[in-house]
Formats: sequence, C-alpha cells, structure tokens
Amino acid sequence: MIPIAILGGSGYTALELMKILLHHPHARIVAVTSRQDGAPAVAELHPSLLGRIDLRCEPLDADELERRGVKCAFGCLPHGASREALPPLLERGIRVIDLSADYRLRDPNVYAQWYGESHDDLVHLAEAVYGLPELYGDDIASARLVANPGCYPQTAILGLAPLVAGKHIELKSIIVDSKSGVSGAGRTPKLGTHFPECNESFSAYNVGKHRHTPEIEQALTDLAGEPVEVIFTPHLAPMDRGIFSTIYAVPWRAFSEEQLLEMYRAYFVNAPFVRVRTTLPATKDVAHTNFLDICVRVVRGRIVVLACEDNLIRGASGVAVQNFNRMFGFDEKTALL
Amino acid sequence: MIPIAILGGSGYTALELMKILLHHPHARIVAVTSRQDGAPAVAELHPSLLGRIDLRCEPLDADELERRGVKCAFGCLPHGASREALPPLLERGIRVIDLSADYRLRDPNVYAQWYGESHDDLVHLAEAVYGLPELYGDDIASARLVANPGCYPQTAILGLAPLVAGKHIELKSIIVDSKSGVSGAGRTPKLGTHFPECNESFSAYNVGKHRHTPEIEQALTDLAGEPVEVIFTPHLAPMDRGIFSTIYAVPWRAFSEEQLLEMYRAYFVNAPFVRVRTTLPATKDVAHTNFLDICVRVVRGRIVVLACEDNLIRGASGVAVQNFNRMFGFDEKTALL
Amino acid sequence: MIPIAILGGSGYTALELMKILLHHPHARIVAVTSRQDGAPAVAELHPSLLGRIDLRCEPLDADELERRGVKCAFGCLPHGASREALPPLLERGIRVIDLSADYRLRDPNVYAQWYGESHDDLVHLAEAVYGLPELYGDDIASARLVANPGCYPQTAILGLAPLVAGKHIELKSIIVDSKSGVSGAGRTPKLGTHFPECNESFSAYNVGKHRHTPEIEQALTDLAGEPVEVIFTPHLAPMDRGIFSTIYAVPWRAFSEEQLLEMYRAYFVNAPFVRVRTTLPATKDVAHTNFLDICVRVVRGRIVVLACEDNLIRGASGVAVQNFNRMFGFDEKTALL
Amino acid sequence: MIPIAILGGSGYTALELMKILLHHPHARIVAVTSRQDGAPAVAELHPSLLGRIDLRCEPLDADELERRGVKCAFGCLPHGASREALPPLLERGIRVIDLSADYRLRDPNVYAQWYGESHDDLVHLAEAVYGLPELYGDDIASARLVANPGCYPQTAILGLAPLVAGKHIELKSIIVDSKSGVSGAGRTPKLGTHFPECNESFSAYNVGKHRHTPEIEQALTDLAGEPVEVIFTPHLAPMDRGIFSTIYAVPWRAFSEEQLLEMYRAYFVNAPFVRVRTTLPATKDVAHTNFLDICVRVVRGRIVVLACEDNLIRGASGVAVQNFNRMFGFDEKTALL
Repeated sequence: MIPIAILGGSGYTALELMKILLHHPHARIVAVTSRQDGAPAVAELHPSLLGRIDLRCEPLDADELERRGVKCAFGCLPHGASREALPPLLERGIRVIDLSADYRLRDPNVYAQWYGESHDDLVHLAEAVYGLPELYGDDIASARLVANPGCYPQTAILGLAPLVAGKHIELKSIIVDSKSGVSGAGRTPKLGTHFPECNESFSAYNVGKHRHTPEIEQALTDLAGEPVEVIFTPHLAPMDRGIFSTIYAVPWRAFSEEQLLEMYRAYFVNAPFVRVRTTLPATKDVAHTNFLDICVRVVRGRIVVLACEDNLIRGASGVAVQNFNRMFGFDEKTALL
Repeated sequence: MIPIAILGGSGYTALELMKILLHHPHARIVAVTSRQDGAPAVAELHPSLLGRIDLRCEPLDADELERRGVKCAFGCLPHGASREALPPLLERGIRVIDLSADYRLRDPNVYAQWYGESHDDLVHLAEAVYGLPELYGDDIASARLVANPGCYPQTAILGLAPLVAGKHIELKSIIVDSKSGVSGAGRTPKLGTHFPECNESFSAYNVGKHRHTPEIEQALTDLAGEPVEVIFTPHLAPMDRGIFSTIYAVPWRAFSEEQLLEMYRAYFVNAPFVRVRTTLPATKDVAHTNFLDICVRVVRGRIVVLACEDNLIRGASGVAVQNFNRMFGFDEKTALL
Repeated sequence: MIPIAILGGSGYTALELMKILLHHPHARIVAVTSRQDGAPAVAELHPSLLGRIDLRCEPLDADELERRGVKCAFGCLPHGASREALPPLLERGIRVIDLSADYRLRDPNVYAQWYGESHDDLVHLAEAVYGLPELYGDDIASARLVANPGCYPQTAILGLAPLVAGKHIELKSIIVDSKSGVSGAGRTPKLGTHFPECNESFSAYNVGKHRHTPEIEQALTDLAGEPVEVIFTPHLAPMDRGIFSTIYAVPWRAFSEEQLLEMYRAYFVNAPFVRVRTTLPATKDVAHTNFLDICVRVVRGRIVVLACEDNLIRGASGVAVQNFNRMFGFDEKTALL
Repeated sequence: MIPIAILGGSGYTALELMKILLHHPHARIVAVTSRQDGAPAVAELHPSLLGRIDLRCEPLDADELERRGVKCAFGCLPHGASREALPPLLERGIRVIDLSADYRLRDPNVYAQWYGESHDDLVHLAEAVYGLPELYGDDIASARLVANPGCYPQTAILGLAPLVAGKHIELKSIIVDSKSGVSGAGRTPKLGTHFPECNESFSAYNVGKHRHTPEIEQALTDLAGEPVEVIFTPHLAPMDRGIFSTIYAVPWRAFSEEQLLEMYRAYFVNAPFVRVRTTLPATKDVAHTNFLDICVRVVRGRIVVLACEDNLIRGASGVAVQNFNRMFGFDEKTALL
C-alpha cells in the first residue's frame, strides 16, 4: 500500500480523489490537509464520506508527511498556492501529482501572461511532466512531478490529436466550443454559481480569454511540431458535471466519416479510457467514469469532433489516479474501471 | 400613476416586483435603493431588465423619496434592517409594504424569541397589518404599513383556513411538511445554495426551528380564536421556484373529499388567486403566477391538504402588488393576471 | 377585439400563445382546436390555465371558425399537418400565422429535400411571408399567411444579419453552434426527452442534418444577395427553455469590438426586442420574454457572436404575437413588454 | 465466479446492477435478457456501458440460462411479468432476486387489492423472503427467492424500525411524507416524466393510494407484532435520483434527541449501510451509494425521522447485490463500498 496525502481536502476534486482512492487496492490515504479552522473531520466537510474515512484535516506540514511515509501527494490547492506548497515535498522525495495549473505551462512567460503573476519555481517547472497519459505516458511513469491536465484541455487535445499529429488540418483555424457543468467552477460560493442564477440558464464566459487556451495550444503544438492556435469558447451548462466540446477543423483534403473513424480507432487503440464511438455522445454516458468519448462527423467539408468527459473524474481526479497508477507501476485502470 | 420606491433593489423579490410593476398601469417606479457601491444601474444588477428600466441604484434617503412624491415603498430589505429603515418613511406619509419579517409578529416577545433580537419599533409594529389579502383584506385597504406575509406561511395558512376557521380539526397536531425552491434562500451566495451542492439533492433544514412557525400559528390562532400549534418541516428542492406544502390534520368527524371540496370552494369564492382544484397540484402549474393552488384529500381518516405557489410571486412580490392594489383602490388583480 | 383561434392546442407553443394572448388588449381567443379525444377543457391539458380560460378543445372546422368570426388563426400543428389544415382557412379569409415549418422554405425542392415529402400547397407557399419581423416587417404587415420562423434560425439570422448584410464576412465558412432547452423538442414524450435521460446531460443531435439549416441559409442569402452556407450544430442542454447560439465568422478585414458594437446597435436601432449588449448574455436574462440578446466579441481575428432567446417566446409564440401585432396594426410590443 | 443473469436489461435498475456487478470480484454476468427487437448489444441500450460489457440482449429462456450455468438471476421485469417468468428458473435451481413487487406481499389478497390482479404463483410467494437485509438477513442467506424491497419502503421501514420494534410510538398515526427523484418512475417515457413537465416542478402523486403502503405496513407489523398503519404521501422532485422520507410519529412518552440517537445507533450497530447521523441528511450525501442515512429529531413532542437513500442503488440494485452477497456467502459489502 502506497501512503498517500491529499493536499487541500475541502474541494470537489479532493472529494472525488478520496472516493476513488478508498477503492484503490494499493493506495492508502494517510493525510488530508486543509486550511479549515478547527481541524474538522474530513467527513464533516464532505458528508458523503461519513463512515468511510476517519481522518481529520490538518495543516500542510512537509516534515510530518515525510514522517508518515507519504510517497505520493495529490495537490488540490488553488493556482498559485501549489507552486509554493509543493517544492518542500519534492525536496523530501515525495512524488507529486498537482491538479492545479501551476506546472502545466512549460514557458514561464506564457504562465505570467495568462495567470497574471510570474512563476517563481522554475526548477520544478522545468522537470514537470504534463499528465495526459495518452500522450505523455512514458514520461509520466518516471516523473517526480506530474502537472495533471485541465478539464477542458483534455477534450480538446484528445479530440484533435489524430488530426493534428497526422497534419490533416489547418492549424490556425481550429475552433473549440466547450460546455461545462458547474462543478468545474470549484466549491467556493459565488454569485455566478449560486443556484438560482445558473440553474435553468446557459451562458458563455471568458470568451477568448480562458486560461486553458495556452494549455491546449501547448499540447497540440507538441503534436504538430509547429504552432497551433485555437479559438476557445467556454460555456456554463446547468448541470453538476460533464464537459462537452464541439470542435471544428478544416481538413487539407476530403475525409469520409469512415476514414476518420478508422484513423481515431487506430490512434487510440491502446488507450483504455478513450472510447471512439459512432453515435453522438452525451455527458451522461461518461458521468462518474474516467472515459472520454469521441465521435467524428463531416459537415460541408468541415470535420466536427464531439468529445465529452466527466470534468471531475476524467477531467481531474480520475486522470490523476490514472497517472498515479503509471507512476507506481500499477495497471493504468486500477480503481478506475 | 402612483410613484413607487423599491427599497433594497438587488435581490430576487425586488427583481420580481419590478417585473410586475413595469406592467402596472397605475404605478411608476421612481426610485430603487441599494447599498451597492458605485450606484450601479438597476439593469447591471439584473441583466434581465436591460432596456426595461433606466434607473440607477441610490442610497435610501427618506427626504429624497418624499421630494420625488413617492406614495408607496416596497421594502425588500433583510430582517432587522427593515425596522430601522421604514419609520422615517412612514413619518413622511409614505405607505409601506414590507416584505421582511419585521412587522409580521404582533407580539414583540415572540419576535425576540424567534429572531434573536428585541424589536425596537413597537409603535409601528402595533399598527402593522398582516398582508394576507384573503384573510385581512379590509384592514389592508386602509393600512399605512403592511407586513407582507412569508412564503411558506401563505400555503399553510390558506391551506388550513377553512378547516381551522370552521373548527373542524384538532389544533395541536397539525403537521406542515413544506418543500421550497432555492430562490427562497435569497440571492447571497452560500455553500448550501451553491449549485453543485444543492442541485440534484433534496434536504431538510431548520427542522422544528424555522421562523415561519410563529407566523403560521399567529394567523391560524386568529382564525380559530384559540391557540394553534404546528409542526413545521421545511425542505429544499432542486429548483428555482415554488413552494409545495403537504399538510396533515386530524378532523373531529369524518369528511368526504366532496364535502371538503365544497367547503374550500365556498370559503375561497371571492379569492381570485386561490384555485381550489380536484387534481393534485404541481408547482409548475403556478410558476410565474400569483395563484395559490389547493387540493384536499382524505387518507385513512386524516385530511391531507396539498397547497402550492410560486414563492417569489404569490409568496412575496405578487401578493405585495395584490396588497398595493387593495391599498390604493385598484382591482386586486391589476398587473397580476 | 380580434377573434382568434389556436390550432393544435395541446403543445407548449399553444400554451405560451394562450398565456400571452390572455393579456392582449385587442385579441380574444374564441376557439382552441385539438385532436384530443373527448373534447377536454383547455385547462385540463394545461393545468396552469385553470381559471383563466373556459374553452374546451374542439376539432378543427374551418366553417365553424368562420361562423365565429375568427380573423386570425395561429397554427401550432406539426409539420405536414399545417399544409393540409391551413388552406381552407385562408380561403375563408382567415389570416394565418403558422408556427410549423411548412411555409418557411420558399423553394419546394429544398422543402422536399429536408422534410422528406413533397409540398402540395404551392399556391400558398408562394405567397407566404417569412415571419421574422426585424427583416421582413413590412411584408408581414400585409401578409395573409405568415410562416413564423424557427427557434434556432432567429438567433443565427439576427446574430449574423449586420455582418452578412454589410458583406463583412466570408459567407461559406460560418459556424453556428447552438444549444437548446428541452421544450424545443415538443411535448410528445420520447426516450431522449425522458427526464432521467436528458437531465444532468449535455449532448449533440442531428449534427449537420438539422432542418433549420436551410431556413437559416435562405434568410442569410436574402441579406447577402448571394448564397450563404452554414455549418449548424444543435445541442440539447438540461433546462426547460432557452436557446444560446455561439456563432463564428471570418471577417474580410479586422474589426474592433467597439466597431462591431456600433454596427449592431445601428442595425437594430428600431428593433425593440433585440438587445445588443456589451456583457456576455445568459439564457436566463431573456427567459419568459420576447427579447433576443446579442453580444459580439473578437477572438484571434474571428468574430464570435453570442445570441440567445427564450425558445418558446421569442423563438415561437412571442414572435408570433409580434407578427400578429404588425398584421393587425397594433404596436409591435403589445402584450409582449 | 458465480454466473449471473439479468432479466429485463433495458431499464435503470438493470443498468445500475450491471455497473455494480462489473466490479464484483465473485460474479460474472453471462446473460442479459430483454424483449427488445433485434437482440441489440447491451451497450446500445445503455451507452454508458460502451466497452465495458460485450453481451447482446437475448430472449428469456430458462433452459438456456441453466445450460450456461447461471446460479443467480436478478429479475428487473415489470410487476406481473415477474411472477410468470421466474417459476421456470426456480424449478431449475436458479436462485432469484426479484426487483419487482410480485413476491413482496405475503398475503395474496393484499396483493390483489393493491395490484388489481390475483396472484397465481402462491407456491413461490409462500417461500419468498422479503429482502431487507437489516431485518431479514438470516432468512435471506438461505432463500431461493428473495423479494427485493421497494425503494420508498426501505426508508420508511428502517427509519421507523427502532421505534416500532421497541413499541415506543402510536402505531396507527404514522405519517410518511416521501420525495423521490424521477428515475423511480422507470425508463418508459410518459408525459409526467417528460423533462419539460417535471423539471422545475414539485408535485404529489398517488396520495393515499401508492402500492408501497402495504409493503411498509407488512414489515412494520412484523416488527411490532400487531397491525401498523401509515399515511403515505409520495412526491416527485426534479432530480434524477434520491428518496427523502420525512416521518412523523407520536411517542408514548417523551424522548430526548440524545436518547433517540443512542437507540438508533444501538439498533443499527451491525448494519454497515445504515448511517445514523446527527446532522440533517441530503440525498446528495448518499447518491450513487448503498447507504441509507437517518437522522432523528424531536419537535413539539413528536418524533421526526429524516431518512434518505439513492433510490436506484440502496433502493433497488445495491440492496439486491447486498442480498446476493448474503445468499452466496460473501461479505455483505462486496462491490458496494
């Protein structure tokens, strides 16, 4: 059993991580940290965990985690807080899967441009591996620090990977129109996520300005070997969970849907959590699972890719456990299927 | 045109009031007050009012309202704030319909017991009229200060009125099991009303401790001429609007459903917004209307009353306009049907 | 008072029409037709109308409608049924606003191609006016037969009108990514609209094959004076009402957001129901209204138009009343604001 | 590995059963039956199972199931169909867990009265064990035929069990006010479960007439040793899953909440899926789990019990697997925690 710590235990990704790891045959949660006053029981913060976990929240203390033999920490801290909290753990030999955005963008200038502050942990940034297992699986296996990917980017990157890797489409006219459930906005109450405001409403936000844009572009640029640009439009849908991305691309030559289906199936043949399907997907088909479903259509010569996932599982905590499995030599699917 | 002011313009009851009053042929909104910084346009706070109202929020200033000729103010302030803000208006001859709970409980000791602070405006408390038009309609017509009724109490009081007024039921064993949409909790974001917390969830809250209990009992005691006690259990349902109360009463003698139907129809024959119906109601049937639907059933000798309303319209802003119509001599239904 | 008939009274557009027309100072509903067995009361089909309308459903009989002096009929019949039911009314001098798709596509070949059957009422098809008041307002005023526009097309056409009319964008690479609430699928229960299937789910349907595609292209081609092609992707969002369209266009030259704002405001200066706004819209801002909100952004040189409406009001029954107002010489906003 | 068959594979309880059993270390699904035309793949009926199960639906054939070595069949057939389909399996030595209501009511006259048809399989009815593990656990272990309990009844029976078994309350004045998510109505589309009808709506149905009434009373009568009567009012809440029951009982003597808490904790000390809690529960706390959460309050001398569960898991498929575990000697919690 690998001793595990959850850093920042009060939010939704931490909750989902704990639910998955409580089933994991080779992992044991030995610490949950949180800045909550009074060291509440974890099950007080998350009543769904009543009777399932006995730990109380504690302040993050790297020495204490080391003393308890923690071998892997999952960082569920906010952006900015991660790059301050994680270095002491890494220095003590604790491997880290960071669910924040702090170590996703390799270029600190791009980070500064999109996140509004300069990155101050360039050493670890340089060694961090982008935790998308279908593309960076080998590097993940040996990584000390994995930057778990963003929720939206996974649908966009995997939805486009076969087309971009094969240089089949124009790389500067890609449109990613994404729709997310409300849990993607986190657990801190705000007016925009107050039930009577967002229930029964559909809206766009951060149009052209969402911080997942450079993350999508970085991975697609890796695949293409040349710069890729996307127009990314996130929307909020009145549901708990689920991301659905509708992606529009201009192919260099005509493709039939059959050719595309074959291309995608071949590309993902070894990816147990990517389901290339012939029917149009729905977020409910992937809810509470680590699957990412993809369907490809051709409309008036354009390629339309429809990709969806559960934003909390595949989009965050599930893929984090998938990375954990790779890092510690377990079957990628352990506790996830 | 009666010049109107809305006090506390940022919440949901204020929004619904404005939507109704913008259609009212005899009322004109001349001021909307709010403590919001920067005097935002009302349509900034409520984008649904874009292009429909040109006012900006302003601080509450009784002299200024008097200068603009305001004849009636609708108080949408929080409990506690009302009893401080309203006296200066009343002293300047402005009639007030107060949507807070501050003037609903005639006995200041009961107020202190349930609201945790003593009432300091006993003069106006003494003259305030409880604004349930079906029971206190004549007093409302001549009132200077109307205490607009709470959302839950209206379903309980009107749902039980024929039985209690006719002394047909035990008065100490009444159970009111109520379910509310989330807008009833107001517009201030809190964890309990954060979308991913309450969406897809049903819960109880304040069991046996909800402040609407004494309000229900006061009106039923008026009707009975002797003390009435209710066991009141509020619940939160994952929807924007609507209150549904299921009420259980023990009759002194056996009634058929036909007899009860006749009794209720006779009792509400002059109440245009109370619909006594034979089919089981649903909150959707009354959504966005000022109707309160009632159906009565007999189960194993118990009387089961099912009553529902839109908590923001009939439960707050609609009945406030109904009161306004009575106070200023307009047809009760104006702008509401 | 203009005597009115509603044809096909059991669905959602009929319900919304009745709610609006019950407030209309110059219209009176004198007949509601339906094929329902047993001539149920209208309020039995629609409990929200209890106490508000006294009519019973009756079979559609043109002679009877003429005898009652009906001057205008609103057709809420399914596609196909309209083109059979309406000619007898038109022949009796009854003006018709048809909410089905039967008279929207001027070219019967296009109709046959998308609807799978040939059109057999070419005479009336030739005279029908497409009922989008902001573009065809004058023709609507004198029309005998108005083909009320589809829900999706209004957001796409009005969202693009200034750009297309001004020839500012490429006309063959327009992408319309639309999201609709479930009421758009009508009132007939199907698995796809069964609550536990579509609640908490987001999905795409009819990708590249939706029948509103040629309707959008016909109106945009009118505006451009040359063929326009759109890639149209409809989605289902878990909410009752609302359509949100995110539209992507490639401009011939660079535009700033300020220039586009000015262009749109000028274009819609006389359109009281089109709100060009600077903030990103949400369907909740237009719910239960006849407004269509538009916001324009520029992202990486592309124009992104965000347009939304209530699919049942602006998308169907509200715009039908707007057309009625124009046809009978009333202020366009009557009963709608 | 116990070879398993699922009978009636197209509905929600079958889907949840398959999701659970796919994780079960000692069960293997070898057949899924359905009357669907064309023997569709199970994953066609349930896209969420894509890539997780390879079986196709097949007609129910007892000989074929025997040939494949099926040791246990889970019946997900409609009421009425079960009592026809199950006897041939039982005769072939296949143990059955029946999720329909056909074998729940021991008295065939009561069955006839509430289900409107006479029971024709009295032999198996006589031997069937009511599958509520917390009360009938030992009988379940050795049963050939387990009548899996209804969703509502579990919350009512377990919520009242300590009070009724201890004779602490009046047995003829119990009120059970229950609220259910829409999946409880099954997967067949009907108007009442059409999304735009029940979304954003709360309603009551079958007041005083719901078929779960005699099931609740039978188990409580077993506990009390004398007849128990309940007034049972089911409601529909706009959410997928979850049942929340608010139960009102009149105690023979005064109890403090502390005494009740202690009584309940002692009663359920060996029940791993019953969580007696001090905080008010919410259905979201138990969603997608086999837990049944109970909280007890005292209001004006009445006992108010709040009990909730996931209607598809604890209310149907989860408890079925719990029964399976008991029947085949596995730890009760296998695949459920």
